[in-house]
Amino acid sequence: MVIIMKQISELMGYRSDIKVVDATLRDGGLVNDFHFTDDFVKALYQTNIKAGVDCMEFGYKCDKEMFDVNQFGKWKFCNDDDIREIVGENQTDLKLAVMADVGRCNYKNDIVNKADSPIDVIRVATYLHQIPAAVDMIEDAAKKGYQVTCNIMAISTGQEGDIRAALDMIGQSPVDVIYIVDSYGSLYPEQTARITDLYKEYADKYKKKLGIHAHDNQKLAFANTIEAVGDGVDWLDGTYMAMGRGAGNCAMELLLGFLRNPKYNIYPAISFVEKYMKPMQAEGTVWGYDLQYLVSGLLNQHPRAAIAFTKDQRADYAEFYKEMNSQE
Amino acid sequence: MVIIMKQISELMGYRSDIKVVDATLRDGGLVNDFHFTDDFVKALYQTNIKAGVDCMEFGYKCDKEMFDVNQFGKWKFCNDDDIREIVGENQTDLKLAVMADVGRCNYKNDIVNKADSPIDVIRVATYLHQIPAAVDMIEDAAKKGYQVTCNIMAISTGQEGDIRAALDMIGQSPVDVIYIVDSYGSLYPEQTARITDLYKEYADKYKKKLGIHAHDNQKLAFANTIEAVGDGVDWLDGTYMAMGRGAGNCAMELLLGFLRNPKYNIYPAISFVEKYMKPMQAEGTVWGYDLQYLVSGLLNQHPRAAIAFTKDQRADYAEFYKEMNSQE
Repeated sequence: MVIIMKQISELMGYRSDIKVVDATLRDGGLVNDFHFTDDFVKALYQTNIKAGVDCMEFGYKCDKEMFDVNQFGKWKFCNDDDIREIVGENQTDLKLAVMADVGRCNYKNDIVNKADSPIDVIRVATYLHQIPAAVDMIEDAAKKGYQVTCNIMAISTGQEGDIRAALDMIGQSPVDVIYIVDSYGSLYPEQTARITDLYKEYADKYKKKLGIHAHDNQKLAFANTIEAVGDGVDWLDGTYMAMGRGAGNCAMELLLGFLRNPKYNIYPAISFVEKYMKPMQAEGTVWGYDLQYLVSGLLNQHPRAAIAFTKDQRADYAEFYKEMNSQE
Repeated sequence: MVIIMKQISELMGYRSDIKVVDATLRDGGLVNDFHFTDDFVKALYQTNIKAGVDCMEFGYKCDKEMFDVNQFGKWKFCNDDDIREIVGENQTDLKLAVMADVGRCNYKNDIVNKADSPIDVIRVATYLHQIPAAVDMIEDAAKKGYQVTCNIMAISTGQEGDIRAALDMIGQSPVDVIYIVDSYGSLYPEQTARITDLYKEYADKYKKKLGIHAHDNQKLAFANTIEAVGDGVDWLDGTYMAMGRGAGNCAMELLLGFLRNPKYNIYPAISFVEKYMKPMQAEGTVWGYDLQYLVSGLLNQHPRAAIAFTKDQRADYAEFYKEMNSQE
């Protein structure tokens, strides 16, 4: 397989169809059960506007029949009124997104017509075996007037045949963007390039955009994201200070530093990390790269055992490595 | 420019000429002025043997006329007898290296014949403007019987014409390995690929091997290292828990997890990080990725201002960003 080495002009210039998505509240919410203060969320919203971020993901649209509203912060549910309290009528260029998980969202009821909602983008999250349900959600959201992304999770454990079948089904749906999601933080940039190549085949065929959401288990979230940019992926997820489940995500501040479009501005991002993210971490909220996540990423496994290791404040990393290997 | 996408067989298989170099004592020594206990160094030596590491760098051969032996730990000077105290006769496959800086090493006196020394490899570190002096040191070391590497530092600020002239001069010397050194942690993997391409031209012409030493200012030390592996670089520097100046280096444990040669073993590395590196960090030795290093890397500057920011325990990252930009 022969590819053209990316042109220097592509490194120095920029593609105007790049979209930067801030997933701090959504993926970061998995760290603190969505207990963000309104002050934090308002500052984050203002930061995204100043930094030139294209889209801000507020959280999940989770079914209140399945999850206790008293147990989680409000961004697990993303009521339209709660979003309005932060953004008013959102008379800005910043688009607002929420994530809707297959099997955990009562989308027919909880997602109203776009005309009546501050939300612009519905991000449908699915595993490979749930694609027909995802397509139903995509169709529902598109019919209601939203821009729609489909985030196929845990792709590093998928078989190529299954991924092709999924891309073909999603390609025929009214989805706008198909996301490559490295849920386990298991991919090397070489593999990201190959997977992007595969996704691009279907994106080109069905005239869809591609996105990437990476995890930092092997300190490769940023590297995989910029690899994907070079390969033609347009929608890029980042989170401030890389806040996100387990090892966290691609750091927004790294991403903004990399992108050459003058609309992006790293300074507000650095300011926000200084004023909000660093204090949050200092007060005991724990996320980010550590050995236990390297181990789960390397073994291409869900990070739940590594998250439990972190939560239990264990420090016996070598023992954890043995435990993880003996599960195989 | 057309390149072949790296073959899957290269990802699954391995090149037996890969050499992993542990630079923990040398680059990590820049963090703690080389104050490592003998217990630490002995455990590190044993870990490297068990992990299948190919070469262990003990530190610098610094001129005692220039640096006060009472101010630094012994690995800034690497007396042969101090090394022998750790390794005995080193009847193992692990090669031992020291670094000799141009202008800071009295090599004619302080580096004795290989036959009389436990050291196997002399790593000559040079800036682009010091190449003739570096070549003199390379010739001296080669004549004395050592394997020799030449580490051209701060390559991200070099002009291509100067780099070509330097590679041509070094190519004609008896050096064995030429190192790409991203001292400022400024390179993106795309740029690493281009630079490797340039180095490879001269490496092929003069039958030399290539090496890479990366810094983690933009969390890309590991990504740049594996990019370089894919492009034909054989000598790979890593440090345990990424310990090294400023943002640190490519983490040895990530590198050992990536490499497929069964001689490499990640378990002793995880054990060593657990027992020695984590406690060292908990006791207050500070290194690793943080915003100030992102800023200096992004601006392609020496990390000294960022290191001072860290040492002064400042937390005003946004102010630092403004300071660094106003220096331009």
